Amino acid sequence: MAKSKYEYVRLFETDDTCLRNCYVVVRLDGRNFHKFSEKHSFAKPNDNRALGLMTHSARSVMEELEDVVIAYGQSDEFSFVFKRTSTWFKRRASKLMTHVASQFSSSYVFYWKEYFAEQPLLYPPGFDGRVVLYPSNRNLRDYLSWRQADCHVNNLYNTAFWTLIQKGGLTTVQAEERLKGTLAADKNEILFSEFDINYNNEPPLLRKGTTLIWEKRDEPVTKWVKLPNEEGEKEMTVTRSRKRVCPHHCDIIGDQFWEEHQDILESDDC
Amino acid sequence: MAKSKYEYVRLFETDDTCLRNCYVVVRLDGRNFHKFSEKHSFAKPNDNRALGLMTHSARSVMEELEDVVIAYGQSDEFSFVFKRTSTWFKRRASKLMTHVASQFSSSYVFYWKEYFAEQPLLYPPGFDGRVVLYPSNRNLRDYLSWRQADCHVNNLYNTAFWTLIQKGGLTTVQAEERLKGTLAADKNEILFSEFDINYNNEPPLLRKGTTLIWEKRDEPVTKWVKLPNEEGEKEMTVTRSRKRVCPHHCDIIGDQFWEEHQDILESDDC
Amino acid sequence: MAKSKYEYVRLFETDDTCLRNCYVVVRLDGRNFHKFSEKHSFAKPNDNRALGLMTHSARSVMEELEDVVIAYGQSDEFSFVFKRTSTWFKRRASKLMTHVASQFSSSYVFYWKEYFAEQPLLYPPGFDGRVVLYPSNRNLRDYLSWRQADCHVNNLYNTAFWTLIQKGGLTTVQAEERLKGTLAADKNEILFSEFDINYNNEPPLLRKGTTLIWEKRDEPVTKWVKLPNEEGEKEMTVTRSRKRVCPHHCDIIGDQFWEEHQDILESDDC
Amino acid sequence: MAKSKYEYVRLFETDDTCLRNCYVVVRLDGRNFHKFSEKHSFAKPNDNRALGLMTHSARSVMEELEDVVIAYGQSDEFSFVFKRTSTWFKRRASKLMTHVASQFSSSYVFYWKEYFAEQPLLYPPGFDGRVVLYPSNRNLRDYLSWRQADCHVNNLYNTAFWTLIQKGGLTTVQAEERLKGTLAADKNEILFSEFDINYNNEPPLLRKGTTLIWEKRDEPVTKWVKLPNEEGEKEMTVTRSRKRVCPHHCDIIGDQFWEEHQDILESDDC
Repeated sequence: MAKSKYEYVRLFETDDTCLRNCYVVVRLDGRNFHKFSEKHSFAKPNDNRALGLMTHSARSVMEELEDVVIAYGQSDEFSFVFKRTSTWFKRRASKLMTHVASQFSSSYVFYWKEYFAEQPLLYPPGFDGRVVLYPSNRNLRDYLSWRQADCHVNNLYNTAFWTLIQKGGLTTVQAEERLKGTLAADKNEILFSEFDINYNNEPPLLRKGTTLIWEKRDEPVTKWVKLPNEEGEKEMTVTRSRKRVCPHHCDIIGDQFWEEHQDILESDDC
Repeated sequence: MAKSKYEYVRLFETDDTCLRNCYVVVRLDGRNFHKFSEKHSFAKPNDNRALGLMTHSARSVMEELEDVVIAYGQSDEFSFVFKRTSTWFKRRASKLMTHVASQFSSSYVFYWKEYFAEQPLLYPPGFDGRVVLYPSNRNLRDYLSWRQADCHVNNLYNTAFWTLIQKGGLTTVQAEERLKGTLAADKNEILFSEFDINYNNEPPLLRKGTTLIWEKRDEPVTKWVKLPNEEGEKEMTVTRSRKRVCPHHCDIIGDQFWEEHQDILESDDC
Repeated sequence: MAKSKYEYVRLFETDDTCLRNCYVVVRLDGRNFHKFSEKHSFAKPNDNRALGLMTHSARSVMEELEDVVIAYGQSDEFSFVFKRTSTWFKRRASKLMTHVASQFSSSYVFYWKEYFAEQPLLYPPGFDGRVVLYPSNRNLRDYLSWRQADCHVNNLYNTAFWTLIQKGGLTTVQAEERLKGTLAADKNEILFSEFDINYNNEPPLLRKGTTLIWEKRDEPVTKWVKLPNEEGEKEMTVTRSRKRVCPHHCDIIGDQFWEEHQDILESDDC
Repeated sequence: MAKSKYEYVRLFETDDTCLRNCYVVVRLDGRNFHKFSEKHSFAKPNDNRALGLMTHSARSVMEELEDVVIAYGQSDEFSFVFKRTSTWFKRRASKLMTHVASQFSSSYVFYWKEYFAEQPLLYPPGFDGRVVLYPSNRNLRDYLSWRQADCHVNNLYNTAFWTLIQKGGLTTVQAEERLKGTLAADKNEILFSEFDINYNNEPPLLRKGTTLIWEKRDEPVTKWVKLPNEEGEKEMTVTRSRKRVCPHHCDIIGDQFWEEHQDILESDDC
């Protein structure tokens, strides 16, 4: 029963190292989340509990795995960006994406109760993932812009759709019919003139999605400090600077966010 | 904020379709499970609760995802074999492995309580995955033989190691020293002559690991049957044949298992 | 000017090892050969000189590079099959296909004069290549059948097309019009009833293409043999068995060819 | 003999599209050129005919294939850089590298006579190729610097080695022994103090290799111009600006070359 006789099968593994000096993006998408959200009675068009759980799971990924410099999520998807110089797991694509998918999924179940309290999780959910490489800062920013623009388009539609149903009394078929072929301006107008809703005043969490980055935060820490002359110890509150994963719900398409957080991207000059 | 301006970033996704007519194996391995097993007080050398939970999670993967024809697990690893003609998710490697990693991980947390009862899960565990292709039945069987031989080698070592400590009173360093350079026969001899343990009588679950396959099982189903002449209905027990995921703890290196389950492998002639 | 400062760029090379236990097929196609054949006044529908040069170049590839067990060519394309257990150039796809493309191309120019005599080569021709893997004997045979069926379909069409023009006096437009929508049987009928040509009697080289394989051939070798009793030496003709690349123009879709040359394919059982 | 039955084999082809927005470098290396150079009596340490033929073949590649913006060669190797936005052959790696290998090889044989005159080519030579991607201008320049530094290191060694033999009367073994462990400065010193050779005065072609780029050159063109008032035509020489492949033998490691030819590289900002 010697292992060695069979070990040749290891040679069938292929090398899937990600090209150096590229950002590695792992994007997760919920599997059959339409059904999942119905079975768990998610609020429409957005369920804050579900969004909170997604963000908590994403934070767990960032804290557990190295080298994720920024993550962006909306609806049932989340993208994780590994820094371009990362050598985590030798940049092997399979390791990077399965680790992210695994850690996110186990966290989702683990933290479920914190967000859904008494409402039980009925079955273990699934997420699929993929890896995409981006060679330049421009490409990476355009990727994130693409996802945030997608968030905007979907959320405006869903807000109009469910408002027509919940406040306007339309059926789903009627609401669909009503919105067919409308532009963004039309949907804004419907919300404003018919329901007195200014879409721009909707919560940024819903309009912009969630961006997670590492930030240094000053935190008060209680510690015992020795007094001089052997007079014993005294409890003191000290301020410590620690890196924390922090959520933002702002625009990441324009330049402002990136100017304010210049340490996220590495230079294209290397 | 038009999506279209940024949509070019989709072109950076690469096609990772698995070569046709090959078995696709996805293997998962626990991440930092040495630490995980200590934090959760796993029994040594084997924790039946943990092994049961692994198997339950693997079964959940097989029932949820299509086309897995056989799975094999031992310790903190599990391998899933997609049939060679599978077209699930267009055979995209990234989809196959992240789905498996995700479903397994969320199931592991979801079913934890069923195996560990009052003992709480302290943090969400992670598993990493990989994809390997095998072109022939021989290659696939050799892969599975490699994993089962690995199970045997590790379990014999661990059994001897922990017996020396738990029954023999050795320290871990002493046990390590004692086993250094020993062959399988030596370890069998130590267990037998010093501790009266016949290794071959150890539970097959531990010596052989767990093999999951689909089997047709006759199951009694209760149903109401209409009586003739409108005399009403009567409750009857009927036998139905259903495909179920069934565990085996037998040898899968030799031919017998494969002769008894000829529908697992597809012919090399296609 | 130290090399070492820049050597990190080697890390950007990726591993493109071909999956083990699969046949590696490299197929070459002439680049812009429509124009090339016109500029060099190739006979229509087939130019025996050009076909002979293709075959000579292919033989040069087989004799120069290791592990090609069979090659098949027709028109301006040639496929080379590396045996499934080949470890030539560590099975690196890029090395295999560029070597074949390079050796074939330099041979094509080198041997041009042997086939086109006084007609000069006007410019260096190009061929592009690709690599395809086939896991089973069935798949490989179906690949070769696909190419030979393609040869048949094209050659029947071209034979009918150019006969209509050269013997029937039609223009190219008229000939195209005449053949539009015709089946194989129709084209056979046109050739037979209008031009007294039985397509099945056309040369096998044109109908079946060229298959190259290694065969042991007995060859007479002249050598000097020492006579007994120091009576000197005598010139003798000895028969030696040598492996040679030999051309066939037979059917390779059916079983007969493969039964007669059982050493070409390796068993699927390994 | 329907093609369709076998056409499924096309599904086994894999997509090998090069990541967008990266430079695609195809490097060719002579196969067994040590033997080839001996059989064809190449002058040592450098044969200007052979270097000229390499450059001519490389120019043929650039003129024939699209989107190569710079090529660099030395000894028996040549690197071709496709611009990062190239969509030539849909960026398929296999097509790019086989086309380059094929065109280069057929050109090498085709132009042989122009450089080696009466000395015949004895057999068709081979070149192997590979593809490497570079995401940034820095990476690409470092790649080219790596090759030019390699040229310098090898040429200095070979110049010293063959001078010791040809002028110093050493055997190859003695020359090897003499140079073992020497630094660049030592080799310079040997050449200068013992043979009165200032290495820096050696031809730039040998010290720096050959860089090919596209340049606009004004060229006189003779044409017939109509005279006013129907007085007939007159032959005139007009100056036309045409893009030509031009060789350079300068340093490409420092900034000067790149500042003087700013159109070679595309910005990292896209």
